[in-house]
Amino acid sequence: MPTFDSHPAYRARLDARHGRLIGPTANIAPGYVQANLAILPADLATDFLRFCQRNPKPCPLLAMSEPGSPALPDLGHDIDIRSDIPRYRVWRNGELVAEPTDVRDIWRDDLVSFLIGCSFSFEEAMLENGLPVRHIEQGCNVPMYRTSIPTHPAGPFHGPLVVSMRPLKAADAIRAIQVTSRFPSVHGAPVHFGDPAEIGIMDINRPDYGDPVTIHPGEVPVFWACGVTPQSVVAAIQSEFCITHAPGHMLITDLLNSRMAVL
Amino acid sequence: MPTFDSHPAYRARLDARHGRLIGPTANIAPGYVQANLAILPADLATDFLRFCQRNPKPCPLLAMSEPGSPALPDLGHDIDIRSDIPRYRVWRNGELVAEPTDVRDIWRDDLVSFLIGCSFSFEEAMLENGLPVRHIEQGCNVPMYRTSIPTHPAGPFHGPLVVSMRPLKAADAIRAIQVTSRFPSVHGAPVHFGDPAEIGIMDINRPDYGDPVTIHPGEVPVFWACGVTPQSVVAAIQSEFCITHAPGHMLITDLLNSRMAVL
Repeated sequence: MPTFDSHPAYRARLDARHGRLIGPTANIAPGYVQANLAILPADLATDFLRFCQRNPKPCPLLAMSEPGSPALPDLGHDIDIRSDIPRYRVWRNGELVAEPTDVRDIWRDDLVSFLIGCSFSFEEAMLENGLPVRHIEQGCNVPMYRTSIPTHPAGPFHGPLVVSMRPLKAADAIRAIQVTSRFPSVHGAPVHFGDPAEIGIMDINRPDYGDPVTIHPGEVPVFWACGVTPQSVVAAIQSEFCITHAPGHMLITDLLNSRMAVL
Repeated sequence: MPTFDSHPAYRARLDARHGRLIGPTANIAPGYVQANLAILPADLATDFLRFCQRNPKPCPLLAMSEPGSPALPDLGHDIDIRSDIPRYRVWRNGELVAEPTDVRDIWRDDLVSFLIGCSFSFEEAMLENGLPVRHIEQGCNVPMYRTSIPTHPAGPFHGPLVVSMRPLKAADAIRAIQVTSRFPSVHGAPVHFGDPAEIGIMDINRPDYGDPVTIHPGEVPVFWACGVTPQSVVAAIQSEFCITHAPGHMLITDLLNSRMAVL
């Protein structure tokens, strides 16, 4: 490992901490695991932990903090979760109230941080396998859809599974299923392919989140459980207070994507 | 291991050897690997070996004999390939001339036996995973199709890939891809799913070999490389002499299906 401040992941976090990185984190510190964030008051933490445990495909939990602590020692050196993400979303009673680049001024001693795996890790493995990733080719955000597949509820947390979609030829889809199956801690294998209506998606060209992408003739849409699911579930309960990352603005950890593979 | 003659695989081979087993081997000695057979004159053996090496998905070679030897010590105790298969097909100049239960009387010192993995092994794994296998449900042979996908030629051996088809719901197909990927020595992952026309299959209800099966609404056809490919390729060269097993009448080996899994 290089000295800490020349380490690409740590340097990216310091850039975020000091206001030098305020945009999306795609292609920043390639090779390192990026994570979705949900910060909740401690009185909701046990139920949310149970929700993640019951829904490991959309909510693969990489780490959880001590109440009030901004550190995440399992994910990286000197992480301060209050400043090390480029942009946050602050929610009060279910309403988005701010998108700051730092949340130190509104931090509370009862807040618990949940860091959840992200599809960037398996997309890197897909690209290394020569598989196309359409939204990367097209320079836009991945299309995401609310489905008719329910999550397993826990306490107040419930709601539909959100999926991301990548179009692939059948032979490439088979390889993508093999490749992403190796990464259960970052959503793992797809949950569906083919007919979008079977999982309640009425118009594949109108995603609920992100951007539409081109599906070429001979390609089928392939659907993976998505880390937007926990955000959507957290927003739905209208908690008096919570914080998430702004879409695409992730925590860059010291973990290597390649080490996420189970074999 | 039990004593040899109480061992289920060896007992089945002895039954075949002594004329007590002359029918198909499905459900005989469950748990043991069954194998496709091609017996060729030695002057074709090197090219056929190279054909198998170039086409491991349809032709996963489990073992190859010494010229003239009926033994296959890597596959089981006391195998005599001239008698231990319930029924053979004898081909002269590309014509099927006989379907005997024993080939000792026509054996030659220049014959080389090739034993090739069979889908029975991965079907057992599918069933253990709660996945439906339609032709087993319907009590018929698996449907098989000649495709527009060419094999990689070697010497005189060339021809289209033959595939077998099992209909599955998308979520089950994803699991089946995971399960069968663990078994590369018995055809491994599928080669295609979805539109049959994409691989040159014009009528899914009219297989080229085997029997048609029902595809329920919401199911997609999933296609695996098939061990009939080498038989079809061998027949096409109209060798002056060759022997294969009769369809469904396989060699039962002492290898365990579970040991075929790479992980």
